[in-house]
Amino acid sequence: MEINQAIEKLYKLQAKLSAYNHASALIYYDGVTAAPKGTAANRGQTLSVLSEEQYILSTGKETVELLEFLDEHKAELSEKDARIVYLALKDIRDMQKIPMDEFVAYQQLLVEADDVWHTAKETDNFDLYCPILEKIFETEKRFAGYCAPEKHPYDYCLDKYENGLTMEKCDEFFAALKSRLVPLIKKISEKQQVSDKCLWGEFDESAQEKFSYDLMKTMGIDLNHCGLATTEHPFTISFGSHHDVRITTHYFKDNFASSMYSVIHEGGHALYDMGSADDLAYTLLDGGVSMGIHESQSRFYENLLGRSREFVSYIFPKLCEYFPEQMKNTTAEDVYKALNLVKPSLIRIDADEVTYCLHVMVRYELEKRVMSGELAVKDLPTEWNKLYKEYLGVEVPNNKQGVLQDSHWSGGSIGYFPSYALGSAYGAQLLRKMKQSVDIDECLRSGNFAPINDWNKENIWKHGRMMDPNDLLEKALGEKFDPFVYTDYLEKKYGEIYNI
Amino acid sequence: MEINQAIEKLYKLQAKLSAYNHASALIYYDGVTAAPKGTAANRGQTLSVLSEEQYILSTGKETVELLEFLDEHKAELSEKDARIVYLALKDIRDMQKIPMDEFVAYQQLLVEADDVWHTAKETDNFDLYCPILEKIFETEKRFAGYCAPEKHPYDYCLDKYENGLTMEKCDEFFAALKSRLVPLIKKISEKQQVSDKCLWGEFDESAQEKFSYDLMKTMGIDLNHCGLATTEHPFTISFGSHHDVRITTHYFKDNFASSMYSVIHEGGHALYDMGSADDLAYTLLDGGVSMGIHESQSRFYENLLGRSREFVSYIFPKLCEYFPEQMKNTTAEDVYKALNLVKPSLIRIDADEVTYCLHVMVRYELEKRVMSGELAVKDLPTEWNKLYKEYLGVEVPNNKQGVLQDSHWSGGSIGYFPSYALGSAYGAQLLRKMKQSVDIDECLRSGNFAPINDWNKENIWKHGRMMDPNDLLEKALGEKFDPFVYTDYLEKKYGEIYNI
Repeated sequence: MEINQAIEKLYKLQAKLSAYNHASALIYYDGVTAAPKGTAANRGQTLSVLSEEQYILSTGKETVELLEFLDEHKAELSEKDARIVYLALKDIRDMQKIPMDEFVAYQQLLVEADDVWHTAKETDNFDLYCPILEKIFETEKRFAGYCAPEKHPYDYCLDKYENGLTMEKCDEFFAALKSRLVPLIKKISEKQQVSDKCLWGEFDESAQEKFSYDLMKTMGIDLNHCGLATTEHPFTISFGSHHDVRITTHYFKDNFASSMYSVIHEGGHALYDMGSADDLAYTLLDGGVSMGIHESQSRFYENLLGRSREFVSYIFPKLCEYFPEQMKNTTAEDVYKALNLVKPSLIRIDADEVTYCLHVMVRYELEKRVMSGELAVKDLPTEWNKLYKEYLGVEVPNNKQGVLQDSHWSGGSIGYFPSYALGSAYGAQLLRKMKQSVDIDECLRSGNFAPINDWNKENIWKHGRMMDPNDLLEKALGEKFDPFVYTDYLEKKYGEIYNI
Repeated sequence: MEINQAIEKLYKLQAKLSAYNHASALIYYDGVTAAPKGTAANRGQTLSVLSEEQYILSTGKETVELLEFLDEHKAELSEKDARIVYLALKDIRDMQKIPMDEFVAYQQLLVEADDVWHTAKETDNFDLYCPILEKIFETEKRFAGYCAPEKHPYDYCLDKYENGLTMEKCDEFFAALKSRLVPLIKKISEKQQVSDKCLWGEFDESAQEKFSYDLMKTMGIDLNHCGLATTEHPFTISFGSHHDVRITTHYFKDNFASSMYSVIHEGGHALYDMGSADDLAYTLLDGGVSMGIHESQSRFYENLLGRSREFVSYIFPKLCEYFPEQMKNTTAEDVYKALNLVKPSLIRIDADEVTYCLHVMVRYELEKRVMSGELAVKDLPTEWNKLYKEYLGVEVPNNKQGVLQDSHWSGGSIGYFPSYALGSAYGAQLLRKMKQSVDIDECLRSGNFAPINDWNKENIWKHGRMMDPNDLLEKALGEKFDPFVYTDYLEKKYGEIYNI
């Protein structure tokens, strides 16, 4: 085989995989946006065919030989092509260890699980969800055994979302956060509470929708390549390449802030996905490198920018425009304070910045225990409620607002949650670095996201999966990751708000 | 090879083809419902990969050998399996004659064409659309040459939508219709015109949407397996099997009837698609057998039932419920008359029953001339307008309401239009037959579609593609097709309304 020919084959293979990913992702998206209720089995049938084709295409003899040939000649490849071969072989070596029928059956199970989770959440019925969630955890454990028998199964899961992450690193990271967050929360709780009354009222859904598009435009999201839909749980998804990205949100009639910050959060994911260099489209290098880096972008826009005094001062006149009745007798400063109310609560995605990581720690702790075999899936609600009481001091009134709130487990995403906390901390350090060259406060006050987006594009987005997440982060930062930059940021911001 | 093994392979092949069809159909549907404007190239990329896979799967050596083996043993196959082998071989023999790269390129071209057509219609710009429409007609001609060099290229096109249909048959059919419709229209034009004032006003889109769902329920459509969306041009599509069907409509703020009859029309298609026997799912026999039979169902519900005095008397109280202001001072009889106003007009899908077939004849005539090489695509607008003047006596004020109104050509559906007229005529004869055993008037007066649907299910729907369209029709009718049953129906109904 000639190298040129092999490279041509490699790009054809990637185009095929991108097409299958597009189809599978769209079938999932249709399932949670437009599909009628009784059609999950139909989608399962199609996804099982597509995932079998994907499996065969990825692990087939011809593919493996091609990649091994190119790997042997890696010295002659461009940096980009060498990276593609490296990532493809890494993915395939894992996949090959999982028997095809189990791989396919799992994809089908996840379609069903999504359907069951929606109904279980709607009807507050954990018992309905429990059997299929048990199967998901069992499958994850079994796959971990196939792919990385030398590792703890939960370490295998963590590594999938953040290359190199382990329980040991997580424990250390969460301990660092806890050492500073717990005293901070205590100090805040001793101060007079700010009011969030101005966030509540009656907020027309179509006005919220128009506001969402306005937010996306403000953030510099190209609406020609990014769509918006509503779902039970907000998320971001790409179809085949970074040229077609969709975000979703969930409108609540009594509160505008939940959807507003979902849009900004998912908008951050979308900007990252859409920011890959154009020549990465339809290759394995397109899109985000890890969920930790992904969350560093989403939570960066959501909190570090979106909940800043400067951004709120910019957005407040728009709030008055979309919700004139509700914003009467309210000031930008009222809204700023309300949006930064620190109050231990039940729902992760609506949590304030200070208590947010405790929500993540609850999930981390429970996943670890289930994956270690110390906790049965059926006991998750009891343990969930116990940990919420212990970490956050709140009573969980029902499973809908407790263990059923997130869609991650039904999607098979065990080990994802720590990315949110890691990403938040990455983001704070990226902000400090960015401030050396960008006048962020001025950008936010004037609603001009271009200089911020340019920095992120240059340092993070355009690289796609060219570097491992930690290398990418350290290169962008010019230093090692330090979780205390994040806690410093929180202490400073909330010290000012709460007069500590 | 054992026969049992071969049959197992045959079903696996069909499941794969169903999955690819699901993915491709969903990508199209996404493109016209939710996708951001700039994403067509991305969909084209994915569809080109999927259509290449479909082509290889359908025409590959292994598939052809399998089907030929089963064909040699057809005496030993069940009726169902023998039919599957027959249809698969028929499809493949056509497909094999088209070079793969041309097949794939055409799928990609159609994605682009859909996008161009939307913009051209929006901006009333035929020049923008002309070059790509030329390519579509050229490709259809070239493919006709590959697949059926012995035939006139337009006969090849007609046969794709109604097995066995030719220009000769069409000419005869349209001549029969014309011989009765032209005098009828003349007589009506000499009478005092009924008023359709009550259809016009301001109709809130969300009320129209709620009304759409109510109509679907009234028609007996299972909303667990049939979704509704809005698009520029209404259509019906299935995803992988009859268990997941979607219809679309288009709301106009100044008129409720357009969307109402789009919903009923597409609902008729959906009922047919969803009515396949369950054991046909994921096989080549699932869904409708031809577009003529399909339109016999859609136009049956839309007109023969939906525009009857009995149905209007049933639906009128609902209209008053959804549009109370607009229906004030109006009676069911006013609405019935208004919905049956005979008036030569510009838009096919909004045309009355009497003039409708003339709209079809314009398109038939133009397609025939372009496919014969007598008419250049660039001259379509001029000829369109000339024929509208000649057949319908109306002046076409712009291309948006003229040659750009339909989505069929941009989707490559050349030869489809005659199905609408044929289907309308099939429907009238089916109605006469059904009346022998079902009290249709009583069903419509009480909004009880079950006996009607049961008859259609038994005689049409459940058979899927088990029989050729003409055999299916004659079996259901117990006699040969006779277009004058349709003209008799029109003369009787409109004779009464217009006192002729």
